[in-house]
Amino acid sequence: MRRVVEPAGVLPQAAYRLDARGEIAADEVRVRLERLNLDAASFRQLAEKHGGDGAAVRAEVLSIIQDRGKMHNPVTGSGGMLIGTVAEVGPESPLPVRPGDRVATLVSLTLTPLAVTDGLAGWDGRGEQVPCAGHAILFARSVVAVLPDDLDPRLSLAVLDVCGAPALTARTVHGYAEPPTVAVLGGAGKSGSLALAAARQAGAARTVGVVPVPAERDRLLAAGLATEVVLADARDPVGLAASVAGALGGPADVTVVCVDVPGCEHGAILATADGGTVVFFSMATSFAAAALGAEGLAADVTMLIGNGYLPGHAEYALSLLRTVPGVRALFAERLAAD
Amino acid sequence: MRRVVEPAGVLPQAAYRLDARGEIAADEVRVRLERLNLDAASFRQLAEKHGGDGAAVRAEVLSIIQDRGKMHNPVTGSGGMLIGTVAEVGPESPLPVRPGDRVATLVSLTLTPLAVTDGLAGWDGRGEQVPCAGHAILFARSVVAVLPDDLDPRLSLAVLDVCGAPALTARTVHGYAEPPTVAVLGGAGKSGSLALAAARQAGAARTVGVVPVPAERDRLLAAGLATEVVLADARDPVGLAASVAGALGGPADVTVVCVDVPGCEHGAILATADGGTVVFFSMATSFAAAALGAEGLAADVTMLIGNGYLPGHAEYALSLLRTVPGVRALFAERLAAD
Repeated sequence: MRRVVEPAGVLPQAAYRLDARGEIAADEVRVRLERLNLDAASFRQLAEKHGGDGAAVRAEVLSIIQDRGKMHNPVTGSGGMLIGTVAEVGPESPLPVRPGDRVATLVSLTLTPLAVTDGLAGWDGRGEQVPCAGHAILFARSVVAVLPDDLDPRLSLAVLDVCGAPALTARTVHGYAEPPTVAVLGGAGKSGSLALAAARQAGAARTVGVVPVPAERDRLLAAGLATEVVLADARDPVGLAASVAGALGGPADVTVVCVDVPGCEHGAILATADGGTVVFFSMATSFAAAALGAEGLAADVTMLIGNGYLPGHAEYALSLLRTVPGVRALFAERLAAD
Repeated sequence: MRRVVEPAGVLPQAAYRLDARGEIAADEVRVRLERLNLDAASFRQLAEKHGGDGAAVRAEVLSIIQDRGKMHNPVTGSGGMLIGTVAEVGPESPLPVRPGDRVATLVSLTLTPLAVTDGLAGWDGRGEQVPCAGHAILFARSVVAVLPDDLDPRLSLAVLDVCGAPALTARTVHGYAEPPTVAVLGGAGKSGSLALAAARQAGAARTVGVVPVPAERDRLLAAGLATEVVLADARDPVGLAASVAGALGGPADVTVVCVDVPGCEHGAILATADGGTVVFFSMATSFAAAALGAEGLAADVTMLIGNGYLPGHAEYALSLLRTVPGVRALFAERLAAD
């Protein structure tokens, strides 16, 4: 909390501005920046705001970092993560890293002090991955992963960014006495494809991946991650519920929301069986829309806020990438397209 | 959905504007209005915005209803509920009501078509309970309770407004193999006192009610609903966690958030044990603050979005009011103060 500039007394994530100076305290770590990975909802909001003008997106990201001392999108409330090289480790830091380690942070950029020194000159503002120079500060309670040698670091970063989704999906499926059916909205995306693979590995009876466009349907079918793949707009509650029920033979026991657009709460609730569970991973989720939507639909569903941290989540997500060819293929395609 | 004016295709809760005309379809019910009960977060936002000027609050509520065809606060996203008398029941309505029944709606005002005809002339804009004339429309999927004869209808309304909280708290406590410890933030309020009573009845090992001011501490102590009562600001994460741990001998297994102010997410997470559960009932909860807060604190907690609907929730909450003298006393005091 000593890095919180304003307002005083809050935790770093809630702060408007952090102190990003490079000198570290005894329990801190300084990382030399290599690349930021913006949260998908944040990047989409910025890209849409500026009509795809990359230079304007770059200027706004730079301005947010300079103003706030962290990358914290004020509209979406979300950040992303980073990779870099450990430059200095305070003598009292409990983090398992040494100078020279190449690492990824698994806590959000919204609470990570950040200073950029190259004006983001190496980024065209057209993708979520932002090469940059500068430094970031890690606290004693940060979560950080040393990047594995056997994987392209961009691949590791993309997986680690969403590694809470497969871990919580697996835990939710394991919580059912009978194997549940699982629907994943946004099944061809990063968190969605990992969630589908996790649901299957955890013993789901059947899975359906819901995607918005034919190109994603074809990619997800080729990846072979879901029992069924259907085309539907997750913002259309009635259409979505009908598509899921058609694919699974009834509403889903577990619905996992991985679509990074607003307005999917009601569809997810309506697509879920009474007594079922909705797991919201999208940072575009509205608490009020979910709470009032379930009440308004008289839907007895358990609604979980997707927690980005579970013990062992990074190792689990990387193991899915290594062992499930369809996951590896989708991530590789995505990187190639960036 | 036929009452949705704009945007087309969404469910009534998500709509900007509803058609509130009084003629009903075959599966609808028209209710003659008697009183609205504004959601606490909504009323607080309006009262603070207008600096306690009751006439200005009244004018804004009237303007929202006229503009949107429902009482849907655009800032908080929340509504409230109503009581009235059934005026007409369509021949195909599945709701268990007859003309002349005095009823309360258990679905939010944010999805209930509403027309006010008296300009809210009987309300001074200084309390959540709004006497008014006009009508509301109930859909086939609405949830409605006939008001019990043995209770003051204002008392029933106040309880029914928050009846999801005790039901979900009880279900959460029942989900633990060993009796859990339970902290309720805002323990002296409507949902908070019911949640404390429900936690005890469901078998919690120990409970702590957290309140912000000495007057509430004294009231909650007198009501005898919690094992411990502590004074703390739920927006101060470090102070809150220390208070809860001091009262319970360690962090809470279950933390229930019933405070209607923003910024309590991080404190609730920090006050909760690893492997524990946070239940967010406050409509002032930010999805992003909760999701990123847990990730940033590396906290392995299950976070539930408080669902206002569970089967049997109305009967359960009314039974707590009837059988737990401390609950009855707190609600009666609250009504007397309004």
